[in-house]
Amino acid sequence: MKMEIERKFLVKNDSWRQLVGTGLLCEQGYLSSSIDEATVRVRRMGNQGFLTLKGPTEGVSRLEMEYPIPVEDAETMLRMLCNGRTVSKVRYRFFCEGFTWEVDEFSGMNEGLVLAEIELENEEQSFDRPGWLGQEVSHDSRYFNAALAHQPFKSWRT
Amino acid sequence: MKMEIERKFLVKNDSWRQLVGTGLLCEQGYLSSSIDEATVRVRRMGNQGFLTLKGPTEGVSRLEMEYPIPVEDAETMLRMLCNGRTVSKVRYRFFCEGFTWEVDEFSGMNEGLVLAEIELENEEQSFDRPGWLGQEVSHDSRYFNAALAHQPFKSWRT
Repeated sequence: MKMEIERKFLVKNDSWRQLVGTGLLCEQGYLSSSIDEATVRVRRMGNQGFLTLKGPTEGVSRLEMEYPIPVEDAETMLRMLCNGRTVSKVRYRFFCEGFTWEVDEFSGMNEGLVLAEIELENEEQSFDRPGWLGQEVSHDSRYFNAALAHQPFKSWRT
Repeated sequence: MKMEIERKFLVKNDSWRQLVGTGLLCEQGYLSSSIDEATVRVRRMGNQGFLTLKGPTEGVSRLEMEYPIPVEDAETMLRMLCNGRTVSKVRYRFFCEGFTWEVDEFSGMNEGLVLAEIELENEEQSFDRPGWLGQEVSHDSRYFNAALAHQPFKSWRT
């Protein structure tokens, strides 16, 4: 159990690609999601499965509890319990200017969207912004993964 | 991961009490529940915590996946993520006429309600009905624990 402090950004160019190796294919779905209530997420990341519960978002903080589960269970949940509320992406995790970043390159109905995340120890912690970092979207609920499972990026432009 | 086959009954007298020892205090809550979709349940049973996912009910069968979690996590979820959608009961588990039965004696807003459950290997499996067993309520959604968390037994009579 922990409080998760994350800030999320758009990516404005491809220079981050020079910093990364192979990404990890990630499929995740939502058994329950609402901005106001608890979110229950299942994730298959490479050969591992995870079940994650998150509390309501408060600022950029959020209660988070995560449990490893058998990857077969994760696949069953994604197929049978998420009613198509899923998101697929490749996750790249790398070190840049003193911090660990995660860049998610979405596919499927969210193709074209690339988001960068940094995890911080508290809401005020400062960090240097790499040159490829674009606009902050931490507070824009359209970019929440749970929201992208319902209203994918490609549907925004139609 | 398994398919759960359960049948649920009212209890028509107290003679089952002669068969049981001390029950286990059980508090459970729902992070998500709907008869049509997945149910996500957190349970504190004695000193153990569990997170359980159930698929939609099909007849008396239901996909169920359960994971042990730290009891502290279960308590945090019950307090912070269930929005008061909780049920408290004492569970008695005992052997009777060749089968394991579970009798749940509810408390709080469900006080007065006692339910018996038997777990079977398939929907057609037969069993002897003990003398204390009352009417079957397997298909009466008011008696689902998730429903009792929203609309407790005591509220039925008002």
